[in-house]
Amino acid sequence: MSMSLDGFIAGPNAGPGNGLGDGGQRLHDWALTRADSGEMEVVRTGVNGQVFAELMSTGAVVAGRGTFEPAGGWGGDHHDSVPIFILYRQEPGIDISRWPLVTRVNDVTTAMTQAKEAAGDGNVLVHGAGIARLALASGVLDELELHVIPVLLGQGRRLFDGLAPEQIELQRTRIVEGEAGVTHMHYRVQY
Amino acid sequence: MSMSLDGFIAGPNAGPGNGLGDGGQRLHDWALTRADSGEMEVVRTGVNGQVFAELMSTGAVVAGRGTFEPAGGWGGDHHDSVPIFILYRQEPGIDISRWPLVTRVNDVTTAMTQAKEAAGDGNVLVHGAGIARLALASGVLDELELHVIPVLLGQGRRLFDGLAPEQIELQRTRIVEGEAGVTHMHYRVQY
Repeated sequence: MSMSLDGFIAGPNAGPGNGLGDGGQRLHDWALTRADSGEMEVVRTGVNGQVFAELMSTGAVVAGRGTFEPAGGWGGDHHDSVPIFILYRQEPGIDISRWPLVTRVNDVTTAMTQAKEAAGDGNVLVHGAGIARLALASGVLDELELHVIPVLLGQGRRLFDGLAPEQIELQRTRIVEGEAGVTHMHYRVQY
Repeated sequence: MSMSLDGFIAGPNAGPGNGLGDGGQRLHDWALTRADSGEMEVVRTGVNGQVFAELMSTGAVVAGRGTFEPAGGWGGDHHDSVPIFILYRQEPGIDISRWPLVTRVNDVTTAMTQAKEAAGDGNVLVHGAGIARLALASGVLDELELHVIPVLLGQGRRLFDGLAPEQIELQRTRIVEGEAGVTHMHYRVQY
């Protein structure tokens, strides 16, 4: 997750057509920038390129409806044809039957169990704040990777909001100073 | 400021007699631990000791009533007899006339201006979240030093809450990995 130093992962007024909220694109500049051609381009060089590549080398993806649908289901393939597990309690708003990589599951523990199996030795990318919170509250989120952006948004959508009211210890496993003032902070959750 | 990874600087139910809130002492273990004798002891060794020493080598202190009074005004001397500027809009709840180092001021800009003058070449310690937010909103906070603790508190008092609704860019100036998983993050504010 890309997060401002004051804890926001999206700006205010996030919604359909404005997924990152007002000013929220600032949080993703480190990974996705506009090239001279005008096209959006993924970072491939330096420390930031290396960290982004790790994210894209995961062996499975878990996401909730709120991330999956606004992204158009990533056309059925998030990256490299890895399996995608989508948490749906209601009927999907888009037709997922056409996408063989996409599996619908009803609860986060099942989603994580199946995704970990599917990923084998690889990691699972937990995509979206809601699903990350659910996984944390259910004790099935193993690690946190935060890309801390050197900006105070002041308002917007917080990553850590509405967690279970109990203290959770973490083990710091890696701190990497990326370009453009971004600090990549990695922790292992100690339930 | 010592802050949990999820952005809290005190646990829930903070108040008189419970200044750090429930579980909030966890955020200060890196700097203040209980010695074998049972006494609370300031850390003097390692990276954490060095960072704490920087904090205690500041040339002036600025604080608000909410920090100053629960601390008993630090007996009139926070450290090394440096000047203390206290922001008071109402009458003080304790008698400050007996403390020559303590000056009462009415607004945060005056407090910071006088403290910077008093500190000379040294830094000013801005003590407390409320005063830090006020100073930031008024454009007189130059730098942020966050001691990020490897714990999720889940609830409590946030450092970044109720900031002016505008985006503020920061320049990352130093990241230091301290002992016990504490990461000291230093930023310069770019108004």
